[in-house]
Amino acid sequence: MSFIDTIKVRREGGVNTGEQLMALARGAADGTIPDYQLSAWLMAAYLNPLTPPETADLTKAMADSGEKLDLTGLPKPWVDKHSTGGVGDKTTIVLLPLLAACGLTVVKMSGRGLGITGGTVDKLSSVPGFRMDLTPEEMKEQAKRIGLAITGQTPRLAPADKKLYALRDVTGTVGSVPLIVSSILSKKLAGGAETVVLDVKCGSGAFMKTLPAAQELARWLREIGQFCGLNLHLSITDMSQPLGRAVGNALEVKEAIRVLKGEKGRLRDVCVHFAGMALTATGRGSASDAEKALDSGAALAKAKEWFAAQGADLGVFESEDWCSAKDVSELRAEQSGWVSILDAQTIGQAVVDMGGGRKMREDYIDSSVGIVLHAAVGDRVEKGQLLAELHGPIQDIGRAFEMSDTSVPARSVVIE
Amino acid sequence: MSFIDTIKVRREGGVNTGEQLMALARGAADGTIPDYQLSAWLMAAYLNPLTPPETADLTKAMADSGEKLDLTGLPKPWVDKHSTGGVGDKTTIVLLPLLAACGLTVVKMSGRGLGITGGTVDKLSSVPGFRMDLTPEEMKEQAKRIGLAITGQTPRLAPADKKLYALRDVTGTVGSVPLIVSSILSKKLAGGAETVVLDVKCGSGAFMKTLPAAQELARWLREIGQFCGLNLHLSITDMSQPLGRAVGNALEVKEAIRVLKGEKGRLRDVCVHFAGMALTATGRGSASDAEKALDSGAALAKAKEWFAAQGADLGVFESEDWCSAKDVSELRAEQSGWVSILDAQTIGQAVVDMGGGRKMREDYIDSSVGIVLHAAVGDRVEKGQLLAELHGPIQDIGRAFEMSDTSVPARSVVIE
Repeated sequence: MSFIDTIKVRREGGVNTGEQLMALARGAADGTIPDYQLSAWLMAAYLNPLTPPETADLTKAMADSGEKLDLTGLPKPWVDKHSTGGVGDKTTIVLLPLLAACGLTVVKMSGRGLGITGGTVDKLSSVPGFRMDLTPEEMKEQAKRIGLAITGQTPRLAPADKKLYALRDVTGTVGSVPLIVSSILSKKLAGGAETVVLDVKCGSGAFMKTLPAAQELARWLREIGQFCGLNLHLSITDMSQPLGRAVGNALEVKEAIRVLKGEKGRLRDVCVHFAGMALTATGRGSASDAEKALDSGAALAKAKEWFAAQGADLGVFESEDWCSAKDVSELRAEQSGWVSILDAQTIGQAVVDMGGGRKMREDYIDSSVGIVLHAAVGDRVEKGQLLAELHGPIQDIGRAFEMSDTSVPARSVVIE
Repeated sequence: MSFIDTIKVRREGGVNTGEQLMALARGAADGTIPDYQLSAWLMAAYLNPLTPPETADLTKAMADSGEKLDLTGLPKPWVDKHSTGGVGDKTTIVLLPLLAACGLTVVKMSGRGLGITGGTVDKLSSVPGFRMDLTPEEMKEQAKRIGLAITGQTPRLAPADKKLYALRDVTGTVGSVPLIVSSILSKKLAGGAETVVLDVKCGSGAFMKTLPAAQELARWLREIGQFCGLNLHLSITDMSQPLGRAVGNALEVKEAIRVLKGEKGRLRDVCVHFAGMALTATGRGSASDAEKALDSGAALAKAKEWFAAQGADLGVFESEDWCSAKDVSELRAEQSGWVSILDAQTIGQAVVDMGGGRKMREDYIDSSVGIVLHAAVGDRVEKGQLLAELHGPIQDIGRAFEMSDTSVPARSVVIE
């Protein structure tokens, strides 16, 4: 049976067999199925979406398309974390050492950013010396030694996903829920973890703009995760406004370090929430253990160990005077009132326009630029009060803020 | 606006603008739109079919994607002929000199065969010396001199169609009526003719298996032809059994020559029908003029002139002892009765299996092989009577014939 039959079945809205999807993943990984056939299948799959069993088959097939990280010999439980991406989402940088400090083994493969949602690879790459190119062997050795490791996506794990992900991006087939789900979960399966905590972002700064869309994605992730034997736990969190105060690569690392040092706020809240979820899921504790690990300095100590193990300059923990933008300008309130909207999409786009994100895959990123927010939805501000600092080229971000004459409740970060 | 927006509009079932389709054709022709994006668009167009106005825009855009044959200076009317393809369809070889003998100027670009429907390029290439690679300049010069010329598809005319046609073949997107129509008519537009006669085949040996499907294609061809300013006339003809007696490249040329010499039968009938259509459409006569040109030898004389002009050995008009298969075997009737079915698909596939057609684009063709039928639907045959000769490797073609104990009417070749 040739791949053209697989395309025709998809085109007619039929069911692709596990064997066909295995052949697809293998052919995508080794290049024997040409791109033009893969993209015809992807468009057919966009318009005639895969069923849940097909999605599970594709997920497993993509996970099996390359090596799988074998964590045998490492202390259990093995945990991974994933976010569907948002503006100012630096959760990973806090959560990984926090979980490791609580005794879990955390191994994560992370992506680069594209568009307004930043990637952890880009954020950590702003830290002088931080290596994001660990081999699978180095990952395993480091996780064994200090309890955690992170790397950029390697062509050795889930290569079929790497190929299909790149093609979806240029063929208008990104927004298919079964394709999104199989892409996310195939990397988790290949990464070897057993327990996965998932942060499904919802709002203008996320891929899923509305709660029903986020709920649908969450339902699919849960169902396919179960099919694939993952111990998967997830929450939907707010991405109508940026997460935390900083947006921009180095600025976000600096904020994450402040949270590791004990700073309170929405970012800490969401990190504690997901840490509690992972600890509960593995029977190793709860959210209050995560709070303690932050307050005691254990998470900070683990973070330093981690940064050092991956080659980073530990000076970044001592001062914020690294990778800084030359020019800083201010946005001040033109009127008094309550902040009713702080649009994540507008802020995210402004940082991309400043040079802090990629419009195209090959774009160079300026790690120093970004925006620091000094108000959030629900805050009372007076005329002339500082709303935001722009680190780098000036952008018109005034329209990201909307003010109300009456008080507005603060938004809780965890939606459900 | 980038091509990915064109893909997304198609994906959502929206309307692609003339500008977008122009950019598509240009990008397909010059290679600036990658194959994987074109095939994503093709699959989206298969599942969300183009509207008639979009199809007209695409047709014109593909015709404009390369050179256009400018017939200025040649005697009018300028006529072209096209068949949607069938088994044993050698109409072109008779019709072209017949029309030229009746005073029309006939210029045709012809395709190679793929699958069970043979291509005129392959049939004429069986004739020693026949050149199917005339340049546009040679075409025009020859048509001016002797009234007709034919060539294989040149990359200089409608190159966008050449690219999309090849991609459709390998991405499961062949069977979209708007794409079929734009492919056919873009080549006609680029070929410079004003009047086009079209033979829409219907039955097991054709692309359109049922009358409603053939009627739908015919309706689209008429409508888009009108949009594009073509004087287009068409008939639906029977392809449930092979056309004429011979199937196979050299065998079909030999049969066409016999018809040019005066042989009667279904093949002559269909040629006279389409010649009459072209003569009526251009106001230059009617079917009876075509009959006269066959009976007087004028069409035969024109055919010899034509073959000579394109380099062919005129010996093929003197004897049938050229390009012949070494082994000939016979199929005889196992029982007496009336032939009720003579399945075109089975016969066409047998000739491909004998080496007389292509399964893959790069397959070598044995021009000598084929099948000569000695019975047709409606014929009374006695047990032991010759049904068919196989020229070349033996095939099981007995199952192509079905017999009835009661008489069966002969099928008329022109359906409507």
